[in-house]
Amino acid sequence: MVDFGVDFGVDFGAIAHQYKTALLDNVIPFWERHSLDWQQGGYFTCLDRRGQVYDTDKFIWLQNRQVWTFSMLYNCLEPRQGWLDIAAHGAHFLAEHGRDADGNWYFSLNRAGKPLVQPYNIFSDCFAAMAFSQYARASGQDWAEAMAQQAYQTVLNRQGNPKGQYNKVYPGTRPMQSLALPMILANLTLEMAWLLPPEQVDQVLTTTVETVMKTFLDPDRGLIFEHVAADGSLIDSFEGRLLNPGHGIEALWFVMDIAQRYGDQAMIQQAVEVVLRTLDVAWDQDYGGLYYFMDVKGHPPQQLEWDQKLWWVHLEALVALVMGYRLTGQTACWTWYQQVHAYAWEQFADPEYGEWFGYLNRRGEVLMPLKGGKWKGCFHVPRALYRCWQDFEALARQSSSVTISTRAH
Amino acid sequence: MVDFGVDFGVDFGAIAHQYKTALLDNVIPFWERHSLDWQQGGYFTCLDRRGQVYDTDKFIWLQNRQVWTFSMLYNCLEPRQGWLDIAAHGAHFLAEHGRDADGNWYFSLNRAGKPLVQPYNIFSDCFAAMAFSQYARASGQDWAEAMAQQAYQTVLNRQGNPKGQYNKVYPGTRPMQSLALPMILANLTLEMAWLLPPEQVDQVLTTTVETVMKTFLDPDRGLIFEHVAADGSLIDSFEGRLLNPGHGIEALWFVMDIAQRYGDQAMIQQAVEVVLRTLDVAWDQDYGGLYYFMDVKGHPPQQLEWDQKLWWVHLEALVALVMGYRLTGQTACWTWYQQVHAYAWEQFADPEYGEWFGYLNRRGEVLMPLKGGKWKGCFHVPRALYRCWQDFEALARQSSSVTISTRAH
Repeated sequence: MVDFGVDFGVDFGAIAHQYKTALLDNVIPFWERHSLDWQQGGYFTCLDRRGQVYDTDKFIWLQNRQVWTFSMLYNCLEPRQGWLDIAAHGAHFLAEHGRDADGNWYFSLNRAGKPLVQPYNIFSDCFAAMAFSQYARASGQDWAEAMAQQAYQTVLNRQGNPKGQYNKVYPGTRPMQSLALPMILANLTLEMAWLLPPEQVDQVLTTTVETVMKTFLDPDRGLIFEHVAADGSLIDSFEGRLLNPGHGIEALWFVMDIAQRYGDQAMIQQAVEVVLRTLDVAWDQDYGGLYYFMDVKGHPPQQLEWDQKLWWVHLEALVALVMGYRLTGQTACWTWYQQVHAYAWEQFADPEYGEWFGYLNRRGEVLMPLKGGKWKGCFHVPRALYRCWQDFEALARQSSSVTISTRAH
Repeated sequence: MVDFGVDFGVDFGAIAHQYKTALLDNVIPFWERHSLDWQQGGYFTCLDRRGQVYDTDKFIWLQNRQVWTFSMLYNCLEPRQGWLDIAAHGAHFLAEHGRDADGNWYFSLNRAGKPLVQPYNIFSDCFAAMAFSQYARASGQDWAEAMAQQAYQTVLNRQGNPKGQYNKVYPGTRPMQSLALPMILANLTLEMAWLLPPEQVDQVLTTTVETVMKTFLDPDRGLIFEHVAADGSLIDSFEGRLLNPGHGIEALWFVMDIAQRYGDQAMIQQAVEVVLRTLDVAWDQDYGGLYYFMDVKGHPPQQLEWDQKLWWVHLEALVALVMGYRLTGQTACWTWYQQVHAYAWEQFADPEYGEWFGYLNRRGEVLMPLKGGKWKGCFHVPRALYRCWQDFEALARQSSSVTISTRAH
């Protein structure tokens, strides 16, 4: 039974406005002001609490993700020339410096663009395909489209052995599948959809949903695993027992997004159940917030940072919960949304200098006062703010139409 | 001026006894009781608070380190057959399963000894050389000596490119030297000294001391760095700014140990100064204990676990402080010793189930209640307890002779 908030008088429009102003008046301006390297190209991502640069290395994931964000805002929100210019600033730097002679994307560059770390996995290529696909749409540049296609092809070519020579796993002893691979393919295919044959898009998306919900979802525990055996069963090792609640929840809102595309309400309902179950398991009952890593059997995980509270985990949860609520109207989504909202906005958002803190300790105290670093850039915060804003606007529209239709009866 | 504790009436013999009983009645029995895999060979190292096995994978560093520990006790303390049997139990498992066809040591095996993770660095080989050298001395077995020699040769052959194909660093952009390499060579050479020509031993040891104290020691800051430029200067990057206080202090007691061998009192004095300076910088003024990682410029380190308190860091500090005090009699060593002793014994030692906890959060609360895992095994605790015990016994002897000689005057 769908109740759109009218029952408890929530002003969805006001929440939408909160996300909109945070995105447009706070977060995006923070990156516009502080992250552009006008001298040597690309972006600084290592920004302290105030936005001061504390390290000038350029990490390819984050460079590409910032191109993606500004291009996406241009494409999806409004065609502001300033946003396109910022995307172009990064895209040109990356086009010149980002790849080796075989077209593989490096992991990091120094400030001037010289390579520091080799292309040791395909996430760099994945984020490049996403970035240049969005940028090609925004700029209309053929060369950008060609770069997106080339990166996409690299990912497809390397998916059988994503780490290549850098793969440390001895073959055969303990075959294992990783959630990261279907996630990459779903991500990429959604982003590249405008450039791909529709049948290919449909085929990849339905396969992805099936893989996540059949292979990586443990139906008994109701949880998504990071690594499973070839047959989807639990591997009793550090990797096999690992839960990464934020990653699982992100996978689940991808699933909801795709299921929505195909009108598969049963799949949406199942994904929502798993989100709720994940939150039950991963919420810290003592200090609030969601754990970063857990061991499904309650053993010590190998990740020492397991109990920390990370910005992106909470943002993915907000996206999943508002989407789940919009699509199912389930009260539990709304209850959980409020709990995660209260924690995330209180603990992560920095009222003094803008943007969000990235890393809190278990108690919710700021562990490192950075706004950007090697892994945190202009991506999760704006993406989540944008998606939540749009979903709350949709809820506000539904809510007012329900109110009207209720009145009409 | 040397004051050996008589001035403030410390009973060094009592402290020696504390270390002796902890080693022989608590820590070693813990591993004897819980870590042997009688079915499939080798050792379990993933032991929970009570010693129950929670994971059966076999990590080569820790397998070799346990062979080393039991062999060392047999060689240095007393020839107990039970200790030799335990060393042999691991040595045979490792001899059968630990290496690839080229003689490189894997990183990890499954319980049965099948390889899981490839030989992606030379630390496994280093610890193998240490283990089999000690075991060869203990057992008198030629095959063990041959294995030690072979592992030693592998380390020498691979030292120019320790990670081989797994090295992700792009060559040339930012040349960098790591403290780990001279540390490995010093470790190895001390352990293999009985098998090597004396000139080779002297040459490696003097070079190591010089490298640590000239290249990795920043004379202005008085601190040891983990990674420096080719000329020893600071690299302003995450790796270059990194301080690892426990590792620096471990390097410094190696230096003291070697300087003691050559009677170089000035070098000992300098090493002690750097230990004291490191403690000044790395001691947590709010909650006590030593930080795991720091950024020399105070920026956020890339290691999320930077503020955690790790067992081995504190044990290395105890070893360095008692050694420094024994060799110089400096009051600051004794003052610091007492402070670290109070923290370490109070926070890490588990009075209920024995052995020491490995990982505390910044506040000193147990972060993970394990006694062993992927990185903590039967090594740092017994090694440090043994060394501190021996040094306190030496201090007790010095102290009583000073007392006598004082009386005689």
